[in-house]
Amino acid sequence: MTKSQLYRIVFRTDTKPGRQFDIVLLWLILLSALAVIIESVPEIGNKHALLFHSVEWVMTILFTIEYVTRIWISPKPLKYIFSFWGLVDFLSIIPTYASLFFFSYHYFIIIRIFRLLRVFRILKLGRFNSESIFLIKALKSSMHKLSVFLMAVFAIVIIMGTIMYVAEGGEKGYTSIPQGIYWAIVTITTVGYGDMVPQTAIGKIISSVAMITGYAIIAVPTGIITVEMTKSNQKNKCLRCDKANDWNARYCNNCGHQFPE
Amino acid sequence: MTKSQLYRIVFRTDTKPGRQFDIVLLWLILLSALAVIIESVPEIGNKHALLFHSVEWVMTILFTIEYVTRIWISPKPLKYIFSFWGLVDFLSIIPTYASLFFFSYHYFIIIRIFRLLRVFRILKLGRFNSESIFLIKALKSSMHKLSVFLMAVFAIVIIMGTIMYVAEGGEKGYTSIPQGIYWAIVTITTVGYGDMVPQTAIGKIISSVAMITGYAIIAVPTGIITVEMTKSNQKNKCLRCDKANDWNARYCNNCGHQFPE
Amino acid sequence: MTKSQLYRIVFRTDTKPGRQFDIVLLWLILLSALAVIIESVPEIGNKHALLFHSVEWVMTILFTIEYVTRIWISPKPLKYIFSFWGLVDFLSIIPTYASLFFFSYHYFIIIRIFRLLRVFRILKLGRFNSESIFLIKALKSSMHKLSVFLMAVFAIVIIMGTIMYVAEGGEKGYTSIPQGIYWAIVTITTVGYGDMVPQTAIGKIISSVAMITGYAIIAVPTGIITVEMTKSNQKNKCLRCDKANDWNARYCNNCGHQFPE
Amino acid sequence: MTKSQLYRIVFRTDTKPGRQFDIVLLWLILLSALAVIIESVPEIGNKHALLFHSVEWVMTILFTIEYVTRIWISPKPLKYIFSFWGLVDFLSIIPTYASLFFFSYHYFIIIRIFRLLRVFRILKLGRFNSESIFLIKALKSSMHKLSVFLMAVFAIVIIMGTIMYVAEGGEKGYTSIPQGIYWAIVTITTVGYGDMVPQTAIGKIISSVAMITGYAIIAVPTGIITVEMTKSNQKNKCLRCDKANDWNARYCNNCGHQFPE
Repeated sequence: MTKSQLYRIVFRTDTKPGRQFDIVLLWLILLSALAVIIESVPEIGNKHALLFHSVEWVMTILFTIEYVTRIWISPKPLKYIFSFWGLVDFLSIIPTYASLFFFSYHYFIIIRIFRLLRVFRILKLGRFNSESIFLIKALKSSMHKLSVFLMAVFAIVIIMGTIMYVAEGGEKGYTSIPQGIYWAIVTITTVGYGDMVPQTAIGKIISSVAMITGYAIIAVPTGIITVEMTKSNQKNKCLRCDKANDWNARYCNNCGHQFPE
Repeated sequence: MTKSQLYRIVFRTDTKPGRQFDIVLLWLILLSALAVIIESVPEIGNKHALLFHSVEWVMTILFTIEYVTRIWISPKPLKYIFSFWGLVDFLSIIPTYASLFFFSYHYFIIIRIFRLLRVFRILKLGRFNSESIFLIKALKSSMHKLSVFLMAVFAIVIIMGTIMYVAEGGEKGYTSIPQGIYWAIVTITTVGYGDMVPQTAIGKIISSVAMITGYAIIAVPTGIITVEMTKSNQKNKCLRCDKANDWNARYCNNCGHQFPE
Repeated sequence: MTKSQLYRIVFRTDTKPGRQFDIVLLWLILLSALAVIIESVPEIGNKHALLFHSVEWVMTILFTIEYVTRIWISPKPLKYIFSFWGLVDFLSIIPTYASLFFFSYHYFIIIRIFRLLRVFRILKLGRFNSESIFLIKALKSSMHKLSVFLMAVFAIVIIMGTIMYVAEGGEKGYTSIPQGIYWAIVTITTVGYGDMVPQTAIGKIISSVAMITGYAIIAVPTGIITVEMTKSNQKNKCLRCDKANDWNARYCNNCGHQFPE
Repeated sequence: MTKSQLYRIVFRTDTKPGRQFDIVLLWLILLSALAVIIESVPEIGNKHALLFHSVEWVMTILFTIEYVTRIWISPKPLKYIFSFWGLVDFLSIIPTYASLFFFSYHYFIIIRIFRLLRVFRILKLGRFNSESIFLIKALKSSMHKLSVFLMAVFAIVIIMGTIMYVAEGGEKGYTSIPQGIYWAIVTITTVGYGDMVPQTAIGKIISSVAMITGYAIIAVPTGIITVEMTKSNQKNKCLRCDKANDWNARYCNNCGHQFPE
């Protein structure tokens, strides 16, 4: 097998072996993530320590082979190494080797779980492709409106948190403004843990206002995304100027180009 | 009454006696489900043990008669027996007989309550028919987009749960990654029981991010389903001018073309 | 003033004095509801018992005069007396008189607060009229779809509650199926009080499924109502057959009638 | 620099120096708000008291200079002083000076955090302008429908709270109608703190109804805002063929008619 054939299999998904390679890789990633998750349960992790140890080393060696191969066959190895996926790949094998020299590698677990992001490569396979493009497009075109909305939410949350800190007089959990802001986020998003609840009458009135505010403004991002999805759903790209049009448009609304019936 | 007439009554809903049979059956199912639910309340169940015992046996005998009849009149009895409804019917009568030989049949209650699914047959009756077809169609055509969304939610939830497990240092309930994932689901879905809450400053910051994420992405499934419902609602394409019309339109609203019935 | 003039003022809102009468009445209702609410706070209610006693009697006498007047001027007094509003009016004055003979009229408070429903008459005044008609229409036309949805929610909630009752083994609050159903409602609707939380691993898995289900299906009623509102918003009534059409339709989609441009 | 040139820089954003001035001001506001927030954490605020004291005084002096300049260059100084932003500017500098004479200025913190509202001026800059206009327009045109909805929510909440106060017999937190209303708001908005939960069977049934009500009616504001956003998004009517077009269309997508710029 030539290097360029291998490249097609490892880095691309437009051939059958390329897709098969990706599917095998995804199952390995899922398996290793599952091992990390289950190992963290003290009763299971301690009992079967050797088993999890073995799985981890097997996985690490397999992923190391994959990583080295990717560097070897890449036309521009440095570009791959410092790309997002290149870093994820490197960081997901290093913790196991590091554990030979250091005792606690507790914090490395996060890095290994990030390998799970690779699973999203499955979206490039088959029928999910157009669906995920649709969702990403709708989210991207909502981005500006959503960030204006999030800015407003942040301002509301900071002001509400400060008011609450003053109203509850620095007691019962509301010991600082950041604590008040944390409470405001818990309340506005309607999560409502109940670890911090207003005790005073004025505090209860303020939280009632915060709750109803949160209840009403949840409608805003929903509206934004629904409108963008409706738009993406009706897109009809103009061949002359590349601008999106209503799916049933007869003329491009940007350049006046007539669409073929 | 011939066997095929009985078949029409028991298995179909397109005749008056067929509908009446279904309605009587539904009331019996509701009654027996209600009996199971109420019996489970210790104060009531123990006091009127004999009453509930009798109701259960009467119901079981009636459902047994129904089950045997269905097998008898079915043109392909084996096909019925191993169909979904056939299994539900069988499993819903067997627990009572099993209780003659075994003491505890606590776990059989679930099977009996599943009989309640039969109630959805009511949707085949009358005016609810078109409404439920509309809803099921919209859900079916959203399925692919919703599964991409759910995959993203699972990835977010696993990563958030792992981060939280590390951030809170394996304490105060965050004793393993599965516990962290459970917390992440409780938080992202805005349920917020409050049985596990972040104690550290960094944990509170991470959960604030998780909450706002959950608050923003709830908009995505809503958008998906609204768009699909809007589409289902407009699905009638005119053959003359190719314009979308209301699904129950009799004439095209663009060119006046009459739709075939 | 003749009886029919009085009738127009008291029962109708199409004249200026009629609207003024309604507005004065609404303020009195709000005031008396506010008095009931504030009186219920023990610290305030006990302190100013005499004040609240006086307010209540003044209000009751005013409402009695209104009630007697309504009966007197009504062309069909019996029809008014047994109408919904007639009963609300009667039940809202009787508790105070009843308190002369009975000591505790605690439970009568609910009846008095129901008088608050009268406030919705304000929707008949001025600019809110068309808005509330719009909302009521959209809700009415969503009714069938919403009831199919609610039926599905009830079935899910009963099955989830039963599964949970069995899974948690009748402990830690899950002492009966109705308790399990209450927990399922709290979870599916994302309220999440936290008074009942799963303790076992299997229970946590089941609730995770319930939460994600609840998170996904909240999108369904939103989709239904949005679609209906979009439809109401685009209504164009055909002059020939009275059927609603798209607002930009050129021909009625029911009878083919051509709309004027 | 003339006074009118300075006016353009300070009050307007249509020149490059005007935008730069606004951006510098926004960073100062964010910095001073951040200082207020961090100072409120007891461990940090007490340790670095001097640092925060200095930051506060530097900021106050800078904002005082800005305030005096604004009065000086304003063509109608009184109009500015008594405008909303004029009052916010004044109130945000006065607390620091007041603290020279009074010991506790705890409550003044709220005023200083309100200065954060100034950050919304950033929405006038660049690309966010049209997005925020879009959102504000959609919210404004939803206002009437939303207020009818909120009125209905208030009525539901008051009635539910009263019923619950009576049902739970004035115990376990439901000690007055206002407490019941607070509980009803926490429940209907699906926040669900869990500080007050129904104890009686009847109370649990009532809250189940309240939760399902809240779950269903959350769809109403979402529907309202989505419809308004869809409308704002399509608001460009073609003068030749009367068809709705995207608001930023340059040609009608139905007849190819060119819109005036």
